Amino acid sequence: MLDIRTQVGIVGAGPAGLLLAHLLAVAGIETVVLEKRSREEIAHTHRAGILEQGTVDLITALGLDARLRSEGFTHHGIELRVDGEARRIDFADLVGRSVQLYPQQEVFTDLADGAAARGLDVRFEVTDAELEGIEGESPAIVFTDTDGARTRLACDFIAGCDGSRGISKRAIPDELRTDNFREYPFGWFGILTEAPPSADELIYAHSPHGFALISQRTPTTQRMYFQCDPSDDPDRWTDEQIWDELDRRTAAPGFALTHGPIFDKTVIPMRSYVCEPMQHGRLFLAGDAGHTVPPTGAKGLNLAAGDVSVLARALERHYREGKGDLLATYGATALRRVWKAQHFSWWMTSMLHTHPDANSFDNRRQLGELDLVTTSRAGSTYLAEAYTGWSLIPTAPGYLDPASALGEVLASQLRGSGDMSPSR
Amino acid sequence: MLDIRTQVGIVGAGPAGLLLAHLLAVAGIETVVLEKRSREEIAHTHRAGILEQGTVDLITALGLDARLRSEGFTHHGIELRVDGEARRIDFADLVGRSVQLYPQQEVFTDLADGAAARGLDVRFEVTDAELEGIEGESPAIVFTDTDGARTRLACDFIAGCDGSRGISKRAIPDELRTDNFREYPFGWFGILTEAPPSADELIYAHSPHGFALISQRTPTTQRMYFQCDPSDDPDRWTDEQIWDELDRRTAAPGFALTHGPIFDKTVIPMRSYVCEPMQHGRLFLAGDAGHTVPPTGAKGLNLAAGDVSVLARALERHYREGKGDLLATYGATALRRVWKAQHFSWWMTSMLHTHPDANSFDNRRQLGELDLVTTSRAGSTYLAEAYTGWSLIPTAPGYLDPASALGEVLASQLRGSGDMSPSR
Repeated sequence: MLDIRTQVGIVGAGPAGLLLAHLLAVAGIETVVLEKRSREEIAHTHRAGILEQGTVDLITALGLDARLRSEGFTHHGIELRVDGEARRIDFADLVGRSVQLYPQQEVFTDLADGAAARGLDVRFEVTDAELEGIEGESPAIVFTDTDGARTRLACDFIAGCDGSRGISKRAIPDELRTDNFREYPFGWFGILTEAPPSADELIYAHSPHGFALISQRTPTTQRMYFQCDPSDDPDRWTDEQIWDELDRRTAAPGFALTHGPIFDKTVIPMRSYVCEPMQHGRLFLAGDAGHTVPPTGAKGLNLAAGDVSVLARALERHYREGKGDLLATYGATALRRVWKAQHFSWWMTSMLHTHPDANSFDNRRQLGELDLVTTSRAGSTYLAEAYTGWSLIPTAPGYLDPASALGEVLASQLRGSGDMSPSR
Repeated sequence: MLDIRTQVGIVGAGPAGLLLAHLLAVAGIETVVLEKRSREEIAHTHRAGILEQGTVDLITALGLDARLRSEGFTHHGIELRVDGEARRIDFADLVGRSVQLYPQQEVFTDLADGAAARGLDVRFEVTDAELEGIEGESPAIVFTDTDGARTRLACDFIAGCDGSRGISKRAIPDELRTDNFREYPFGWFGILTEAPPSADELIYAHSPHGFALISQRTPTTQRMYFQCDPSDDPDRWTDEQIWDELDRRTAAPGFALTHGPIFDKTVIPMRSYVCEPMQHGRLFLAGDAGHTVPPTGAKGLNLAAGDVSVLARALERHYREGKGDLLATYGATALRRVWKAQHFSWWMTSMLHTHPDANSFDNRRQLGELDLVTTSRAGSTYLAEAYTGWSLIPTAPGYLDPASALGEVLASQLRGSGDMSPSR
């Protein structure tokens, strides 16, 4: 057994783990990041990518925003399309904010490149990781390194950033852990197609035939989804059937969906999950390890950014100021934002999809809701606020201490410009 | 058979029918109002009474607001009490509006007294009413008058204002009618008690034990409710058990519910219903005859006020200006407001009650929603706008023509003072 040591051991090198490692480096805190998958595998896993303004500001404060600005797209609103009628939610007008379309795997690449440049210790393709002693003073992560050496990483704290199927959350004893879970009776059929964009912004289409989402990716590649049976087989669908389904759900006067060769088909289940508590002893969960949202509200990566912002500042407070207060309340602090986002994701999902057990009252009530929220400025603002995102960390005392290295970085997302131009 | 004739025959002398008769009288249109129940029976049926500002303004424009102002109470907000924590929705601050607490049976009494003073033909205790010829040019209401005479009331149009169990909506053929219906898996246990008020404003209490509503009525009589099994038997509950239940659901630091003798106990089912269409031939439905809401959003009487405002103006337009456009679109116009109110009532109901089939995710998500809506000014405004009410009629061309007698009356609720003081 090889023995090594660091201050904070991070399980998982997805966006949550890498973002945490970057933030802790700013605070002068040493980390080792351990990841089961290869770098190539993560970089090639297509994931949706809507970054809240606060997330963009955080990445910018870390100096990792160059590609995000040159290759991403700023969106100043979304369209809710209700039975073919456009009801735009104008973020710029309603809340003076915007979001950035930039796929999650590209965020990962930027964070991984930045980690290498910063000299962070990130180890991919390690296997058989186990957590030890999280309830005591000296926790450790035991794993097999790429060279085959069984290794014991002793650390002060462990951050569980290993996603929804990781080992971290299961280290919280069953009798102390509540798995809050909801599965929806539908999934999303997602495609990638070689075609120019059909619209400048995301279109969330509600129709009697079911929900569809028209998203973008690059000038030549688009991402689209339509509500389907969660057990559906992607290979059962021909390209023609897929386009027919997307066309009829997004039909609107003057609108034509641009078709193209489909090069990726997948069925995504729709699930909501929150692990409570999000901390146990010296283990702290962050990102998908602690919670999963259905993709409708585009909140996944942004919740991770919030978690690691709070956790990084709490660790800085412990190491630099000798105070454990923010660490002690990390879970409760993170969960408050998580539950707001869970509600928002559930709300967008419920409001926009057709429900298999809905009766005529439910369907008409849903149209009444879409009418109410889009014709009320307050209702539209409520939606826009949530979509563009809340502050990543609380403004409560301690979090934004300007004397701390991270206080400065984290405050950047509060000062946010209100607009991400001049990015295209 | 006795033959009589009028311009508009109104079935039902509840607030919807009487308000319509008053409005049509202002427009110089003749009516006969037929009601199955006795005046005393209606005047003694306890019904909740929160009047939107627009409804108060409408009653004021008709000169029938004297008692409402002297005996009602102006409420500038409501409290959402979440597990004992007060989250006030400040209507005055958020939307510059308020609502009036004044029981529905008192509104009825004022409208009935005013009808007598105005010389309107309102006949109580008529029996065996039937609608005839609503699809033709000469509809009629055949009924047995109080003196036993079978009578045929010929009219140009029939307004069905006879509530949720009336005959009017069933006159729309089954094959043309959609009964949009949803029953909730809980009811409200309502009491009337001789006690001073426990609070100045309504308290909507969400607790793990279920929902409760603390309402007021007079300085010495209070109305309170708690969520119960819809099949519960009011007589099964002792006063002590009722107070225990109300106390634990409304418990909060520094709060004490004032107890008193309970002199009325009832279990109210929670139902949502909308009849589509709301018009057929020469029959027009208004108020509960067309739709029912659960009482959580306090929308019942206010929806009726909206329906009859639109209908009265549409009839004035027909008779005085010779244009059938507003009559032709009456149902669609009324339904748009109805479905918004149905959504709002469903939302308040869903957000505040405990649900028998909810799991831990659903319960925590609900708390996340209450946190989000009460900490977001936009969210609170969205709620306050809906609670204090939307305009009773559209601002579209035709409705508010200042040259018409009703245009003037109806515009009063748009000009609304923004505050109902100096009423107490």
